[in-house]
Amino acid sequence: MGKKYYIPANSNTVKWGYYNKNIPPILKIDPGDVVTIEVLTHHAGDAYDLMIKGDKNMEEIYEWTNIKKTINRRGMGDINDKSIGPGKGYGVHLITGPVYINGAKPGDILKVEILDIYPRPSPNKNKYYGSNLAASWGYQYGDLLNKHSPKKEVVSIYNVLPSKKIANPYYNYVWKPQIDSSGIYHKSYNYPGIIVKNKTIRKNYKINNKLNIKLRPHFGILGVTPNYNNMVSSIPPSNFGGNIDNWRAGKYSSIYLPVQVDGANFIVGDSHASQGDSELSGTAIEFSMTGKFRFTLIKKNENPFGLNSPIIETPTEWIIQGFSYPDYLKEFGKQSQELIGKKSSIDAAMRDAYRKTNIFLTKYMKLSEDEAISIMSVAVDFGITQIVDMNYGVHAIIRKNIFKNSNNFNKYKNRKYVTKKIKIHKYKK
Amino acid sequence: MGKKYYIPANSNTVKWGYYNKNIPPILKIDPGDVVTIEVLTHHAGDAYDLMIKGDKNMEEIYEWTNIKKTINRRGMGDINDKSIGPGKGYGVHLITGPVYINGAKPGDILKVEILDIYPRPSPNKNKYYGSNLAASWGYQYGDLLNKHSPKKEVVSIYNVLPSKKIANPYYNYVWKPQIDSSGIYHKSYNYPGIIVKNKTIRKNYKINNKLNIKLRPHFGILGVTPNYNNMVSSIPPSNFGGNIDNWRAGKYSSIYLPVQVDGANFIVGDSHASQGDSELSGTAIEFSMTGKFRFTLIKKNENPFGLNSPIIETPTEWIIQGFSYPDYLKEFGKQSQELIGKKSSIDAAMRDAYRKTNIFLTKYMKLSEDEAISIMSVAVDFGITQIVDMNYGVHAIIRKNIFKNSNNFNKYKNRKYVTKKIKIHKYKK
Repeated sequence: MGKKYYIPANSNTVKWGYYNKNIPPILKIDPGDVVTIEVLTHHAGDAYDLMIKGDKNMEEIYEWTNIKKTINRRGMGDINDKSIGPGKGYGVHLITGPVYINGAKPGDILKVEILDIYPRPSPNKNKYYGSNLAASWGYQYGDLLNKHSPKKEVVSIYNVLPSKKIANPYYNYVWKPQIDSSGIYHKSYNYPGIIVKNKTIRKNYKINNKLNIKLRPHFGILGVTPNYNNMVSSIPPSNFGGNIDNWRAGKYSSIYLPVQVDGANFIVGDSHASQGDSELSGTAIEFSMTGKFRFTLIKKNENPFGLNSPIIETPTEWIIQGFSYPDYLKEFGKQSQELIGKKSSIDAAMRDAYRKTNIFLTKYMKLSEDEAISIMSVAVDFGITQIVDMNYGVHAIIRKNIFKNSNNFNKYKNRKYVTKKIKIHKYKK
Repeated sequence: MGKKYYIPANSNTVKWGYYNKNIPPILKIDPGDVVTIEVLTHHAGDAYDLMIKGDKNMEEIYEWTNIKKTINRRGMGDINDKSIGPGKGYGVHLITGPVYINGAKPGDILKVEILDIYPRPSPNKNKYYGSNLAASWGYQYGDLLNKHSPKKEVVSIYNVLPSKKIANPYYNYVWKPQIDSSGIYHKSYNYPGIIVKNKTIRKNYKINNKLNIKLRPHFGILGVTPNYNNMVSSIPPSNFGGNIDNWRAGKYSSIYLPVQVDGANFIVGDSHASQGDSELSGTAIEFSMTGKFRFTLIKKNENPFGLNSPIIETPTEWIIQGFSYPDYLKEFGKQSQELIGKKSSIDAAMRDAYRKTNIFLTKYMKLSEDEAISIMSVAVDFGITQIVDMNYGVHAIIRKNIFKNSNNFNKYKNRKYVTKKIKIHKYKK
C-alpha cells in the first residue's frame, strides 16, 4: 500500500505556462504512492467574480496589481518582455508540479492512474463556473459566417453542474482589448491571467441556456518533464505528453508517459469540464478541478508498448496518440513557438497515429502486421484530438473488447480502482 | 401508407463502378414508398467458394469466362481499354439502382430512412463471409514495419456472425498477380471482380481468430445521381453522397441527400459488415447485404439545413460530413481520377466539416454563431471518416442530447421506424 499525499495549488506549487527540467520538484514520492493534486484553470480571469473571488488560493495566484504580481513569469518567452509581458505568454497553462517519482529513469514508463477527479470547492454557494474562449488561435478565427467581424474573440461562461453531470451556457461576451495591471495594452487574448474588466465588456445573457453539455472531466495536460536544456512552452504536446487535450484522460483512465529525466517530474494542468474532439475554438470548458493519481513505474526493459509516446488507457479502450511532430523539441527547439503552428497538419498527425498504432498492435497485442492493418481498417477509429495546440493531434481508439478472448485481455480485465476518499493528507515539499 | 417494393441484385439492376445521369431508372416510386434493395459486395472474388458459389445472382454477376463476361464495363474509364479492362477499374463498386422518386427536383432533399439491414442469405449452411483488402490505395501501402515488402496487398477473410453481431478473422493471404478471364495480367488489385485463383495464393489460417470485431452493418455508398454530363467514378464521395463510407449510416439512421437531377435517381452499394473511422487499409469488411429504405422528399423551399451536402442522422446524433473537395466534379471533372487522390488532405476535409457544422448549428439548430462555435469546441467530436476514397472525409458528430430541452428536439424526438417484415414484394422495372 502506497503513501498518500495532498498538493494544494498555490504560489509554491504552481508554474505558469512552461516546463523546465531545472525546476526542483515540489514533492518526492515512491512508486505506488497516491497523490491528490489541485489544478487551477488559467481562464478564471474571464469571470473574476464567479471563478476567483472568495477562493483564497485562486486569489493569491491571480493577484496582480501595479505593485504586486504573484506569478511574474507566464510562458517560456523573454522574462524582460515589455510588449506582452514577462514570459510573453509563450505557454499559458497553470501547471501544478513537478512531482518526482523515486527511481524513475529515462526510458522507463510512468503509469499514472486517474483514480478520481472532482471540481474545486466553489466559493459561490455550490455554484460552479467554467469558461470557453473562441480564441485568436482557434480554428474558426478569421473564418466566420459573420463576415463583418470574422476575427472577434468570444468568451462563453458555462454553469457547471457536477451533480447532474452537465454544463449549460450562462452568458457570453465579445472579448475587448484590455490594459493589464502592469500597464500593457493587449489587443487580443495574448497573455494569460488578465482579469477582464467588467466595464470593458457587454455580457449577453440572451443565449440558449438550455443546451446540455455532458461533462467529460479531464486534464488537458498530463506529462513528464522533457529533457531539454531550456524553457519549454506548455502549449505543444509531444512525446513527453503535456497538453494532449484528449478528453478520454478522465476518471478511471490511465496515461502511460515515457520518462525523459530522472524522477520523471510529473506535471498536470489545464483542467477541463468538457471538450469535443478538435477543441475547435482553442479552448474547452476551462474549469478548476482536483485529481487523485496513483503513480507506478514500468522499467525500461519491460516497456510493453514499443512506443516512446503517451498512451491513454480507459476502462474500455486503448488510445494511441499521434502528433504532427512526434518529437517537436528535437525538430524545432527554441523556434517552435514561431514555426510549429504554421507547419502542423492533421495529415502529419494521422501518419504518426497510424504508425504508432501499428507498433502497438504488433508489439503489445502480438498481432502480425497483416492482422494489425486489417484490424485498424475494420475496427479502429481515428479521430482529431485537437487542432489548436500548435502540434496537432490525431488519436486511434482501439476497443478492448476486440481482444476479450485473447491472452492479452487478462492483463487489464480485472483492474480495480481505489475510489474511497483519502483521509490522510500529507504535503511534503 | 406507402407502397412496398423489392429489388433483387442481378444483371438488370446492377452497374459496376460508375454513376451516369443518362442511365434509366430501374424503378419509379412515390415519396413515402418503401423499397428493399439487395446490394452485392464487389470483393467476393477474393473467396469465390465462400462468397459467390451457390448464390445464383452472385454467380450471374460475377460470371466471367473467355467467352462471356456478364458485366463488361467496370468503372467510368475507357470501354475499349486493353491494359486493365473495360471501364479501367476507375470506379469499383457494385451499385444497385437508380431508383427514381416521382416529383423529386434538383434542390430538393431526399430523405432516405434505413429501416433495416440484413445479411444476404448464405448459400453456405448459414455461414457468412466477408473480405477485407489491405490495398494498394490503402494508407499503409509502402509504409509498413516490414521493410522487406512494404508494398504487398493482403486479403483477410472474416467469419461474419450476424446472430452474435461480431466477425472473427478466418484466414488471410498475400494477393498475388492474376491473369483475368479476358487474358489481361494484373500486377496489383486494380480491377474489380477478378476471381482469385486458389493455386496462385497461399491461405494462412494461423492467424488470431479470436479477435472480436463488433459488427457495424452499413452501406458505404448511399447517393443520388450527380448532374454531370459524363460517366462518374463510384470512388470519390461528394455533395451528392456516394461513397461516403461512414459506418453510422446503419439501421435506424437516415441520410439526407441534396437532389441534383429529376427523380433524384438514388443508388446504393458497397455494403460493409464493419468499418473503422478512416477505413485505413482501403476497404472495410466487404459483405453482401440487403437494405430496406423509405424515401421521402423535403422540397427545396423547406430545406431546413442550409446545406448542399449529405447529412446522416442516427437515433442519437447528427453527422455533418465534410470532404476535402466538397464538389469535386466541378473542381476536377473528368480528370478527378488522376488528380483528386493526389491533392486531397484531411486538413481540407476538416475545414469543410467545420464550415458545414457552423451552418447546420446556426441554421437548423437556431444558435447564434457565437454559441455554435462554443458548442463545437466543447461538445462536438470531429473524426476522420476515410482517407482512401480519393476525396477524403472528416465528419462532425453532434449529439442530440445537447438539444433535448430545446424546441428543435421535438422534431425528431418521437421518430418511429417501420420494422415489421415486408410481405408484398413488387418489382417493376
